[in-house]
Amino acid sequence: MKGKHKIFNDPVYGFISIPYGPVFDLIEHPAFQRLRRIRQLGLTHYVYPGALHTRFHHALGAVHLMSEALDVLKSKGVDITDAETEAAIIAILLHDIGHGPFSHALEHRLVKVHHEDLTTAIMQQLNEEFGGKLSLAIQIFEDKYEKLFLHQLVSGQLDMDRLDYLSRDSFFTGVHEGVVGYDRIIKMLDVRDNKLVVEEKGLYSIEKFLIARRLMYWQAYLHKTVLGAEFMLIHAIERARKLTEEGVQLPLSPFLDYFLSQNIDADYLEANKHDVLEHFIMLDDFDVISALKNFTIHPDVVLSTLSKGIIYRKLFKVEQDDKPFPTEYKQKILDKIKEKYHLCDEEAASFVITTAETNTAYNKDKDEIQVLYKNGEVRPVSAWLEQNFDKSKVTRYFLCYPKDLDKE
Amino acid sequence: MKGKHKIFNDPVYGFISIPYGPVFDLIEHPAFQRLRRIRQLGLTHYVYPGALHTRFHHALGAVHLMSEALDVLKSKGVDITDAETEAAIIAILLHDIGHGPFSHALEHRLVKVHHEDLTTAIMQQLNEEFGGKLSLAIQIFEDKYEKLFLHQLVSGQLDMDRLDYLSRDSFFTGVHEGVVGYDRIIKMLDVRDNKLVVEEKGLYSIEKFLIARRLMYWQAYLHKTVLGAEFMLIHAIERARKLTEEGVQLPLSPFLDYFLSQNIDADYLEANKHDVLEHFIMLDDFDVISALKNFTIHPDVVLSTLSKGIIYRKLFKVEQDDKPFPTEYKQKILDKIKEKYHLCDEEAASFVITTAETNTAYNKDKDEIQVLYKNGEVRPVSAWLEQNFDKSKVTRYFLCYPKDLDKE
Amino acid sequence: MKGKHKIFNDPVYGFISIPYGPVFDLIEHPAFQRLRRIRQLGLTHYVYPGALHTRFHHALGAVHLMSEALDVLKSKGVDITDAETEAAIIAILLHDIGHGPFSHALEHRLVKVHHEDLTTAIMQQLNEEFGGKLSLAIQIFEDKYEKLFLHQLVSGQLDMDRLDYLSRDSFFTGVHEGVVGYDRIIKMLDVRDNKLVVEEKGLYSIEKFLIARRLMYWQAYLHKTVLGAEFMLIHAIERARKLTEEGVQLPLSPFLDYFLSQNIDADYLEANKHDVLEHFIMLDDFDVISALKNFTIHPDVVLSTLSKGIIYRKLFKVEQDDKPFPTEYKQKILDKIKEKYHLCDEEAASFVITTAETNTAYNKDKDEIQVLYKNGEVRPVSAWLEQNFDKSKVTRYFLCYPKDLDKE
Amino acid sequence: MKGKHKIFNDPVYGFISIPYGPVFDLIEHPAFQRLRRIRQLGLTHYVYPGALHTRFHHALGAVHLMSEALDVLKSKGVDITDAETEAAIIAILLHDIGHGPFSHALEHRLVKVHHEDLTTAIMQQLNEEFGGKLSLAIQIFEDKYEKLFLHQLVSGQLDMDRLDYLSRDSFFTGVHEGVVGYDRIIKMLDVRDNKLVVEEKGLYSIEKFLIARRLMYWQAYLHKTVLGAEFMLIHAIERARKLTEEGVQLPLSPFLDYFLSQNIDADYLEANKHDVLEHFIMLDDFDVISALKNFTIHPDVVLSTLSKGIIYRKLFKVEQDDKPFPTEYKQKILDKIKEKYHLCDEEAASFVITTAETNTAYNKDKDEIQVLYKNGEVRPVSAWLEQNFDKSKVTRYFLCYPKDLDKE
Repeated sequence: MKGKHKIFNDPVYGFISIPYGPVFDLIEHPAFQRLRRIRQLGLTHYVYPGALHTRFHHALGAVHLMSEALDVLKSKGVDITDAETEAAIIAILLHDIGHGPFSHALEHRLVKVHHEDLTTAIMQQLNEEFGGKLSLAIQIFEDKYEKLFLHQLVSGQLDMDRLDYLSRDSFFTGVHEGVVGYDRIIKMLDVRDNKLVVEEKGLYSIEKFLIARRLMYWQAYLHKTVLGAEFMLIHAIERARKLTEEGVQLPLSPFLDYFLSQNIDADYLEANKHDVLEHFIMLDDFDVISALKNFTIHPDVVLSTLSKGIIYRKLFKVEQDDKPFPTEYKQKILDKIKEKYHLCDEEAASFVITTAETNTAYNKDKDEIQVLYKNGEVRPVSAWLEQNFDKSKVTRYFLCYPKDLDKE
Repeated sequence: MKGKHKIFNDPVYGFISIPYGPVFDLIEHPAFQRLRRIRQLGLTHYVYPGALHTRFHHALGAVHLMSEALDVLKSKGVDITDAETEAAIIAILLHDIGHGPFSHALEHRLVKVHHEDLTTAIMQQLNEEFGGKLSLAIQIFEDKYEKLFLHQLVSGQLDMDRLDYLSRDSFFTGVHEGVVGYDRIIKMLDVRDNKLVVEEKGLYSIEKFLIARRLMYWQAYLHKTVLGAEFMLIHAIERARKLTEEGVQLPLSPFLDYFLSQNIDADYLEANKHDVLEHFIMLDDFDVISALKNFTIHPDVVLSTLSKGIIYRKLFKVEQDDKPFPTEYKQKILDKIKEKYHLCDEEAASFVITTAETNTAYNKDKDEIQVLYKNGEVRPVSAWLEQNFDKSKVTRYFLCYPKDLDKE
Repeated sequence: MKGKHKIFNDPVYGFISIPYGPVFDLIEHPAFQRLRRIRQLGLTHYVYPGALHTRFHHALGAVHLMSEALDVLKSKGVDITDAETEAAIIAILLHDIGHGPFSHALEHRLVKVHHEDLTTAIMQQLNEEFGGKLSLAIQIFEDKYEKLFLHQLVSGQLDMDRLDYLSRDSFFTGVHEGVVGYDRIIKMLDVRDNKLVVEEKGLYSIEKFLIARRLMYWQAYLHKTVLGAEFMLIHAIERARKLTEEGVQLPLSPFLDYFLSQNIDADYLEANKHDVLEHFIMLDDFDVISALKNFTIHPDVVLSTLSKGIIYRKLFKVEQDDKPFPTEYKQKILDKIKEKYHLCDEEAASFVITTAETNTAYNKDKDEIQVLYKNGEVRPVSAWLEQNFDKSKVTRYFLCYPKDLDKE
Repeated sequence: MKGKHKIFNDPVYGFISIPYGPVFDLIEHPAFQRLRRIRQLGLTHYVYPGALHTRFHHALGAVHLMSEALDVLKSKGVDITDAETEAAIIAILLHDIGHGPFSHALEHRLVKVHHEDLTTAIMQQLNEEFGGKLSLAIQIFEDKYEKLFLHQLVSGQLDMDRLDYLSRDSFFTGVHEGVVGYDRIIKMLDVRDNKLVVEEKGLYSIEKFLIARRLMYWQAYLHKTVLGAEFMLIHAIERARKLTEEGVQLPLSPFLDYFLSQNIDADYLEANKHDVLEHFIMLDDFDVISALKNFTIHPDVVLSTLSKGIIYRKLFKVEQDDKPFPTEYKQKILDKIKEKYHLCDEEAASFVITTAETNTAYNKDKDEIQVLYKNGEVRPVSAWLEQNFDKSKVTRYFLCYPKDLDKE
């Protein structure tokens, strides 16, 4: 966009240029500044110490890629107005604003509302504050705008969100297996029949993008040590909620207290929107980590054990398998925990965590990535991948419990 | 070192290899894990959003460079034993362990002890826990060991600390002016007369290192917006201490409360070492930022104004000059503040901050960088820089106050 | 290795350290210096203009990786003597010394001997010059040495040759799809039962390495425009040989003339080793390209058309298909060429080129990559890849002919 | 520019986008394709083996930066038409087209015309071929166009030529001291009074650019080993010209022969423009290196000694000093050469080479870099550098002669 720009330094792309005006003003808003205090990858830095980047930086990065993509499309003759450009940039800027702290682990636990609904609620509130300047962005975000490709750039199988988070996460973790050729992919984008397509020349880049995404899932997002730390976090927070509900006074910030002492779900949000959002935009990683630190010296053994485990990084052991763990095996572990920590059944349950995680390299049942061939045909990428790519869905099972048990 | 190693991913160097044994065990210790919660550059991420890296990662990075440097020296025939290798690595690993949160701003304000003295105190306590395995490391750290070059690698004009922090800070800020050729410099190191020297071939790399360091000071460490945010932080914490001393109950973590409600100086530390250190190793960025968040809704106007300014990133205006600001000018600003915020003199003083910062490119009065010429001579680098380098010391003055004042 | 080192700058790895002594002396030898004049990727720079790197630089790079790999193995307790270290480094340094210019295209056409046999012949001759210092290196190169893993590092499914050429080729072409995590792979190497294994933790890096290799084949090594240029080169050289055999005097360097005016095959090499090698180590890209330049003004239409096509980069059209092209189609093109260029059948045949190229991602029939699991088991990587990886062999067919024909 | 683009991979910038139309057609022209056969840094790869990049790639890189710079200026409201955009891109594309092979060493020796005059001559000839489409580009190149800043972008103290060659040369040599923040500098460009200015925020980037340029001179362009190799090349070519003039038949390509057997100066060019240019656009590194290879077996001792020295990389010794070498010292060396090689005075002179090279960090006597301050003022950068920067001019003297002499 023409006019003055604010330049942000970015280790990933060099510089990110943000146009002054509504986009810049939204960045300055406390609701967006809060994203500076929410890490993109939660506790992943316990395995990859560089992974400290925030949702703030990711959102700016996605704006950068969106601007590049829109420029490429315009240069190929796609009609995109200045208003649409600004709206698409706002939509990607705010696409994650409804995320709370550690949302991979804590979504639906602190606030019992899907993060996309919170995003919509916050966007609407900002739209009021900004005198309706976000209306088109909201339409694009909710896929209600006629130029469908704009929504696809915000949210689709090849959107600017994914391109940025894969690039950024692989950069800061140092997991080079996740590097994607975002620049080449973007240069290959075009529009046919109002929808996004990728030129044939970009096929190998798409293949590599799908592979990189799958590898990032196994090596970072579903890394068993990261999952283990997050399981402990979930159980610590659940324990804190239970104690709070039982009337125990915990050393919580007023913002975290608001969400733990009440059951804030979609209905509650609907009925108390202003009040909930006012507290929500003050809730971040600092409330959660500070609470855990305070819990380390709390008399409740379950709460302090889990909290010390996270804060001192004395993590539970995590076993991983490609089939579910047998019930008897889990029971044996539970028994040992009860004995060792002198806990009742219910308390001991906080120390044994099982879960399953699924990684799908490419889902051809969703809105497919479409390829534009040199002869003008458009075909889904799965037709080409058929012979070259493994599309199978892989599920892994995890079991997590205190480390010193199995030594007995 | 031989034997099994733990590998950490690092976006800066690729991989960092840590030998299992005492070095690894120290990393696992809560006192060291705490450095995961202390950012290397405090509030600098308000200007460079990528600058979120921690003292934890910096310490590992410095260990990496130390290992490389020791390998280079050994390959050139310098006699370094396995015990000395381990000790030098431990010394650099722990060299910053005495830093508290935001220590560029808050050193001597939270704990009224120099960070190096805290480092020594913690190292001694760890030495007890580790049954004396840190004794040689402490000797090296305190420059009491006969092989002087080992201390110089930990702390000198060309130490592994500087090489890592310049590399790391320029990497994460994206300020490429600060990039140094750490690998080339390290490859050029040697020892003569028990002291570190740089081979003549590395002269341009040294020159570039000195320039990069100077530019990093102006562009990052002394960036006026960063200084402004830090000034506000200092005044917020001082205000909180004052209120605490006056008996006002503030929403502080127990760890921060310990340091704000008492005057903990060198004497106090000496008398209560165990107790102070136990609290100190739980004190980090999370206590400070969480406190500021809680302060945003506190009735004290000075405290809440400064805290909201930091948390919402509504920073004060910062003026910068190469001579001190006139007293009358400062008085005029103070008057406006009193009027606008309805404050008394003392309170208003929290909103006007002046300071001076000095940047010296190279200080030839300190232990000089020595150059080993091809003919075998050793001469200080200043002799060579004389004609090529500006060694002058530059002082800049800063004045910081609420932004909306000057619009009146 | 201990002792003084020569340092080479390398854009790929930063610095490459070469020990003074036999390794350095071999690099200084004209037979090795000649590799400065042979590009690693022949005419690939016609598609990727950065791909100008030479076999000289590749050989140094492979030495660098070999040194790192040997260090890793030693640190894990694998017994490798100083003599073996030097020999393995010499073996990898010289592994490609038998390559002639544009050897992807011209191998068996300039010299009718396999490049590995030429490598052995040159290594033997150098061994004489160097008083037997290469004997162990030759044993390793020929897989006659008892520590089998040393040969595997030189030539195997995961050797330092492949790791360097994939890294280097993707770096200089800018095809990021080919980037491999060479450093992580090397850190995961170990030895069991005298053979190379990769630790389980490196599985994803191996998977990515195999994918990257496959993508590099399609995007660089078998890029149809590159193949087209090489086909033209082959036919130009064959034409020149034919004319030479017919007694036509061509403007050739004495070195190229030696190989075009005689039929130098394995028997001839055996009988005239010294003379052949003396000419061979003066034969490089400069002889070939200079000849083509001179041919552009030669009266033979076939020779000058092909040569101008290459030199002016007016390349033939290349069609690509997954089944062979029908004979009639090829005949139709031949007819058009005869008509347009007034050529006889035999001459026209120089302008139509067909070929098939096969890309196999991973060949489990060769000496397999072995994986060392945490429980101590060693299993071939194919067992793990089974479910995740497409191992199929893909063949593509190419047809190449003058561009302006199909416009008629 | 709008419309279809050709994308080139570039290791330095990722991708370079070239608009189809005249710019692309010029790239396809044999006169430009020839730049693929001329290395940017001549024999520098003898010291930095990666420095094999060509003038072809540099020209494309400069086009890339020019496009970025024009986009930045337009986004700041500077009026630049589509025709001017194309012309500026053509001007930078062709700015070096008049360079011959090894032009740092051989300019004025092969063709006795300044390379800028050859550039103009070729541009004019291309303009005829392209029906006048280069007229505006020529005006800009010759600084005859009213929008002065366009010429400054092509040729000035901060032009796209310098930004690209410093970036590219430091990238391929691996001399990180030469890295410049080209992206930041370009983002800071603006225009005032029809001339280029840099925003105040870019001052440190400019300072770093000047320092990087100075360091690249000492570490690469004026590296004594590179200079030594180039001196030998100069003397070999001069010897070849002399022998040719004396009627000795040398094994030269017809293109090199054309320039060595005649005295082609500005007058000759003027009188035989078409003929000279036809030969010139076929003259490249391959003619020179192939000739040297052929000379290695020539009976003339001076010619074969110099040629073998270059081809086998047995380079002469180079001494370097900050004052001229005394005449007696040079005479002593000459005497030794005469004795050792049995040469006459004149022949021996080919083996002793003296020269002086000057490096000026920043020349404030030329058209100065202008800085745009926040208050709107424009001042030359030297006013700011005054206190921070060493502007002195440094001259070094070189003496080059056969290596084995001084051992006697």
